[in-house]
Parts: sequence; C-alpha cells; structure tokens
Amino acid sequence: MGASPKIEPRTLKGFRDYLPAAALAREQLIETAKAVYRDFGFAPIDTPALEYTEILLGKGGDESDKQLYRFTDSGGRDVALRFDLTVPFARFAAQHAPTLGLPFKRYHVGTVWRGENTQAGRYREFMQCDFDTIGTESALADQESVLVIHELFRRLGFERFTIRVNDRRVLNGFLERLELQDHSVAVLRALDKLAKVGPAKVTEELAAAGVSAAQATEVLAFAGLGADTGADSGASGDAEAILEQLPKLVQGSAAGELGIGSLRGVVEAARATGVPPGRLALDVAIARGLDYYTGVIFETFLGDLPKIGSCCSGGRYDDLASLYTKQRLPGVGASLGVDRLLAAMEELGMVAATSAPCPVLVTLFDADHGTASLTIASELRAAGIGAELYPEPKKLGKQLEYAARRGFALALIAGPAEMAEGLVQLKVLATGTSTTVARAELATACLAALGGAERES
Amino acid sequence: MGASPKIEPRTLKGFRDYLPAAALAREQLIETAKAVYRDFGFAPIDTPALEYTEILLGKGGDESDKQLYRFTDSGGRDVALRFDLTVPFARFAAQHAPTLGLPFKRYHVGTVWRGENTQAGRYREFMQCDFDTIGTESALADQESVLVIHELFRRLGFERFTIRVNDRRVLNGFLERLELQDHSVAVLRALDKLAKVGPAKVTEELAAAGVSAAQATEVLAFAGLGADTGADSGASGDAEAILEQLPKLVQGSAAGELGIGSLRGVVEAARATGVPPGRLALDVAIARGLDYYTGVIFETFLGDLPKIGSCCSGGRYDDLASLYTKQRLPGVGASLGVDRLLAAMEELGMVAATSAPCPVLVTLFDADHGTASLTIASELRAAGIGAELYPEPKKLGKQLEYAARRGFALALIAGPAEMAEGLVQLKVLATGTSTTVARAELATACLAALGGAERES
Repeated sequence: MGASPKIEPRTLKGFRDYLPAAALAREQLIETAKAVYRDFGFAPIDTPALEYTEILLGKGGDESDKQLYRFTDSGGRDVALRFDLTVPFARFAAQHAPTLGLPFKRYHVGTVWRGENTQAGRYREFMQCDFDTIGTESALADQESVLVIHELFRRLGFERFTIRVNDRRVLNGFLERLELQDHSVAVLRALDKLAKVGPAKVTEELAAAGVSAAQATEVLAFAGLGADTGADSGASGDAEAILEQLPKLVQGSAAGELGIGSLRGVVEAARATGVPPGRLALDVAIARGLDYYTGVIFETFLGDLPKIGSCCSGGRYDDLASLYTKQRLPGVGASLGVDRLLAAMEELGMVAATSAPCPVLVTLFDADHGTASLTIASELRAAGIGAELYPEPKKLGKQLEYAARRGFALALIAGPAEMAEGLVQLKVLATGTSTTVARAELATACLAALGGAERES
Repeated sequence: MGASPKIEPRTLKGFRDYLPAAALAREQLIETAKAVYRDFGFAPIDTPALEYTEILLGKGGDESDKQLYRFTDSGGRDVALRFDLTVPFARFAAQHAPTLGLPFKRYHVGTVWRGENTQAGRYREFMQCDFDTIGTESALADQESVLVIHELFRRLGFERFTIRVNDRRVLNGFLERLELQDHSVAVLRALDKLAKVGPAKVTEELAAAGVSAAQATEVLAFAGLGADTGADSGASGDAEAILEQLPKLVQGSAAGELGIGSLRGVVEAARATGVPPGRLALDVAIARGLDYYTGVIFETFLGDLPKIGSCCSGGRYDDLASLYTKQRLPGVGASLGVDRLLAAMEELGMVAATSAPCPVLVTLFDADHGTASLTIASELRAAGIGAELYPEPKKLGKQLEYAARRGFALALIAGPAEMAEGLVQLKVLATGTSTTVARAELATACLAALGGAERES
C-alpha cells in the first residue's frame, strides 16, 4: 500500500480544515453561545444537512438557489445541502409545532453550504449559530433577544460593542407621513449608502427616484438621527433623546407609533437589567433587507473593529413557515456570525494562541517510568487539572520544545532521583522558572501556578 | 404567500430532526466527551463535510463506496460527503503533520453520511466522536486510550461497564504456534460466532476450513480464556490470571510475546490509576476486523445493556495515511458510538426527560409587569441560574402547564400585590409546593430549591 502512487491530500476549493488552535477557539465561542442561549430558555434542535430540494428552493432568492449544492441521491430523490438554518427551522416548525407547543424557543448551531464565489475570502462551508422565539408577538421576546445578544458578547469577553436597534414600523411610519411608501426601496437603498457616499450623492439619487428636495431633506435628517453611523464609531446616540424626537417624525402613522413603543420597550428593558447605555443605540436608518423583517431589527458592532460589520443580526418577522403550514408562526431571533466574530477576536488578540487543550504536560523520563508518569497525569486529572502525558522517552529538551510549541502552561518533570524522594519538578513555561514540589502537594501547586500563569498572560 | 399551496414539511428517508429533549441529551453527552478528551491532551480539529471523491473512495471497502453520497458539484468536481471521520483524518494528517508536529493527539466530533439500508433502524446521517494519538508507537498511548474510555463512561454516569481489551499480536502469536496463519480468516470468523452458535457448530466450521480436530480444540480453549462473552455478562475475567496463561499459548512467537507485554501494560496502567478490576477485562477472542488493527484492540460494553454491543471501540494501527503520504503515521484511537450510547442511556433512564434547557420559568402576571418579570429573570441569570421568561400574559394555569410540559424545575409567580411588597412566590413543579420569598433572597432560595429538586429526582 505504502509504495503505490499517492493521492494528493487536499481540500476542495472554498473548504478548509480547522487545525487545533482555530478549532479550540471556535469550540469555546460556540460553547459560550450555547450556554447563554440555554440560560434564556432556548433549547437546542438539529435538522439534517440534506433536505428535499423543494424545501430549500426559492426561499433565499435566486442567488441562494444558484449556490445550492444540489444532486440526485441514489434513491432518485432531488436533494440539496442546507444553505442556512432558517429555512430548515421553518420546515421543522411546521412539522413539529403541534408536538412542541408554543411559544417555542430554539437555538441551532450547524454547518451550512453555499457554492459562493470564493474570491472575497468567503468559504463554501461555514457555521451558523441562531436563536429564535416563535409563536408569540410579545414585545418581551423582542426585548429579551437584545438581552441575549448583550449577554453573549459580554461573556465572550467584549467590553466595547454596540447593539444597534431599529423597528421597521418606525421607518414605515416615517415613509407614510412623507407619502413615500411607494419609494421605500429607493429610500432604503439611499439610507444604506449614506455613510459611504455622503449626503450630496444620496440627495441626487433620491431625486432621480422621484423624491422631492423637501422630502430628501427630511430623509437625510431622519437618517442623521441617533448614532454616528461612520465606520469608526463604536459610540452610541442617546436612546432617550431619540425616542423623544421620533413621534413628530411618524406623526399620523399608527404603525409608526407601534414601532416607537417597541423601541421604548427595548430601551427600558436594557436600562432595567443594567445594560450600559453605550452598548445600546437606536439607529432608525437600519433596515436589514426589505421584505423579511416586520418589527424590531438589530445589528451588533464591535467598538474596536466596526469595519467588519455586524457580528450578530436579526429581528422580528411576521410568519416563519407560511410555505409549509397554515399555522401562523410569528417570531423574533438573530444569528451569530461565528466565523466573522472569530476572525475579529483573533485580530483583537482575544484568542489565546495555543493548541493545547489542557494546561499541563507531564514529561516522560524513560520507558521504565511510564506508569509513574501516567499516574501523575491521572492524579492531576482527578483533581480537575487537565494533563497530557508525553508518550515517548525523548530528550527532555525535545519534550519541553513540544510543550512550548503547543502552548502548555506547565511542564512536570520527574527523574528517578525525584521519583524516589516523592518529588516532582514543576516548570512554568512562560517564565522558565522551576520549583520542586512534593508529590502530595502537586495538584495544589499546579493550581497556584496556573492562577499565576493566567494573571501574567 | 400564505394562501399558495403548501410544500409538505418532511425529512428525507433515513434522516431525522432532533427535538429539544433529544438534542439536549446529545449535546450533554458530546460536551462530556470533549471535556474528557481535552483533559487528556486531545485537541479538536474539523474537516469539511465534502471531500474530493478520490480521497474517500476505496477506503472503507466496497460497501462504503456504494453508500457514498457522491455527486458532481457546479464546478465539475467529483465530490462526496464523508462516511466516517477516519479517512478525512488520514487526509488531514498527511497534509498537516509537518505543521503540527508529532506526536499529535486529536479528537473530532462530526456528522457523517452513509446511504445505508434504513430497515435496521439505522440512519443515513449520524454523528461520530473519535479520538486518536498518531506519530507514536508508545505503549503509553495505548494505555492512556483505555483510561480515556474509562473516564468517559465514568463521567457519563455509568457504574457498570467493561472495557474488553485484546492485542492482535496475541491472536497472531497463537495462530503462529498452531501453524494456522493461513487459516486466520476462518478462525477469526469462527471465534466471532462462538457465543452465538456454540462450540459444536464452530468445530464443524473449522473442520470445513481445514482446521484439524486437535487445532480446533485449542482454538476453543483459547477463545474460552477470560471473560464470559455471553450477552448477559457485564462481569469480567481475572486479567492477571489470563496474563499468566497466555505465554504458553503463544510460545515461540515473538509477536505473541509483544502482545502479552502490551496487555500487561494496559492492566498495570489501569491498576495504577485506580480503574476498578471489573471495568477492565482481557478477551483474547476479539479481533475487530481483519486488516486495520495491528496491536491493542478495545471494545466497551454496558453491564446493564450488553446486548446493544460495543459503545466505544478502537485500537492500534500501523499507519494511518499511507494512501496520501510517505510519512509513516502509526497511531491508536477509538470511536464513541454517540447514537447507540444515547439510545442505551435513554433505555436505562439516565437521560432526564426534559426539554427545558434551564431550571426556572418566570411567569408573567400581565403586560404591565413585563419589565418587572424580565428583571427577575435577569437577576437570576446574573446569579448563575438559567431562567426563561414566559412572554405572554396568559392565565397562570396555562403558564404552569407550559412549565410542567417542558420539564422546568421551578416556576416563579409575582402578581401586583407581591411585587409591591418585594415578594415572589416560588413553586417547585415536581411537588407543587409553594413558598413566598423576599426578592433579595430569591436567587438563594432558588438554588436551595434546585438542590432539593435534584435530590428528589
């Protein structure tokens, strides 16, 4: 077998392997997200990677259809890999809502596939991490969604981030007052571009779309409300001040009034639960697509890296699963951009550059001391300290090199003399300092050294 | 959209959704497995679900090839979904070993797909959960693999389980002594069937394969060594006694001697680290396929449910990735049967029948008390107690019904009178008992009640 011609080991274009350091960071991020979701009462679900193509087709627009990994299986079925977690959730909800009962809160962490153009550094396989509450129109569910996002970023270790919130009905109410409902697409598009192209260019575009100069001025003033939307802004507008100005901007629109009430509720909930003011910003200009969302909308920007865009977005929708069931399933939810956030955390130095999944490496003096070293590692684990045993009696220098390259915090060394005396040498790899410890105190000494190592890093 | 004909919401044959109770149980199992793997120094990796077909083809035998989900992607590539995690790991190791360095310890939890016959209650999509140490022939790595499996089942909550261990070289040494090397396939097949068809039938089959009556007697005696292999046995043979008898059975075979040394090392490591004797059994009759494994082999049986077969199996192999690289990569590892184990845990009543991902449901008295209830839930979370807020001001009975159906442990109730006095009613759902608690002591009272609820269940 070894002598036959080799198959080139390679991954498909647009696909990638996760090596330990990246896989560890991703695992940690996902475990944190799951823990937060669970704490708010969201339960996990899973759906198959493959679905009947008819379930997926036409749900994400033409672009999604073109990007489908679609084929005929050996049973002659037309099948495709899921391209997001929302469409499978809609199918799932239509199928299981009677069993599950409503309201229903779920999270779903899963891989999705899109045959996208890979030029933009995008991958064809990536992970999504969604949470949704369906079967209720309660404003409390909207408010809690914002609290979920806040808690999530807080627990991931972010200090500076802003959840930007809007309500589609405020936008609609404003357009209604200006009698611009029929120009909503042009107006929203212009608002989207404002930060990039500036007010002059936007006014021009609005005029071309048939928006009067007076209307355009109002649109620009509306868009200017609230936070600076420039790319370098992590700061937020004063939510309460914006709430005061909104009523006159949507005057006469019942939808607009509802939207303001919704935003007021979000701000109140955030204040009542101690969300720092800078972390929540009202931004009446965000729309997030034209069709899907019908109420509250949110986006999340990192204060130290706003340019990468929103790392967690979502909103309220009117009906999740109308394609599959007559039962109306309104809901609210958001999706965490796992890969984008990981890239950001790496850039911000928030990811430990280690591929060691546990803190201690137990070295091996020689083959005769295998059981002794294995027992030391086992004792540490019993004390709650993860420990890897180096399996080969290589030169100590080689073993310590391995420990350093992997990113272990501590290495334990015990030769025959130490073993005979019941001692172990404990080496802090970051500093190179060694201490000799009695075997009986080893776990305690490791814990102390690890506390110290963590403080230093 | 709502009025158009509906698409039937359904999953593909052989595929399934995971509803919350099942998904929660699976998540818990996998998190435990990952924690144990990490504690032993195994780091996570991930590989794409899709690979070039040439990477996967011919690696799992004809059966695997036929079961491949294989298609041509829109770029004209011949691709397929992975059918296990071992072949992708071989490709991964060939590609990345120079970067990662050796030895390399990885775990991999991932979905795999096989277009199997679904009659036997098997699914076409399932999860694997493997760990391997490659780049070393150290017996310590073999020994630690057994300790990993032991720790894993222990932490999953099993008391009665047996890891059955053999070494292929003991089997080979025995066949060598009897000059039956050329009949190994027939002998191994007969040994496999022994428990099912009995010694008379096996003797008959051996005779048909050209094994003499004297040889057959020896084969049966050899197979009878060690533990009862009957389906109702969770008990183990006496490993030390078996180790004493082995040398004469493999006399004259160098490989056999090495195998005995390997088994002796496993037994010693287990004894040194406090593995209870009944949890480790030597079973010289297990072979686990004919080609792949070359040294130690293990299988894991549940004492209370042995009939379901091995829930964690593996062994030592000579070379992981010879199809892709000239670098020899010997290793040892095992694979946890996630679905089989979950089914067993459910049958044994080890899985809580709950779909509540957190212990407390905060009820909602009326719409005006939304912020107040939301704040209570938020305070509990800040104290480390997961809490879901019921989002609708429905009748209390309905809300408590929801709590009971989902499997929450506690429900909190606060009407205007209680709110005004700073009180909350705490209801233990399993018993129906209520107590009234000052808001300031709520978290403490919940923790106490949860401790009690756990003791009762």
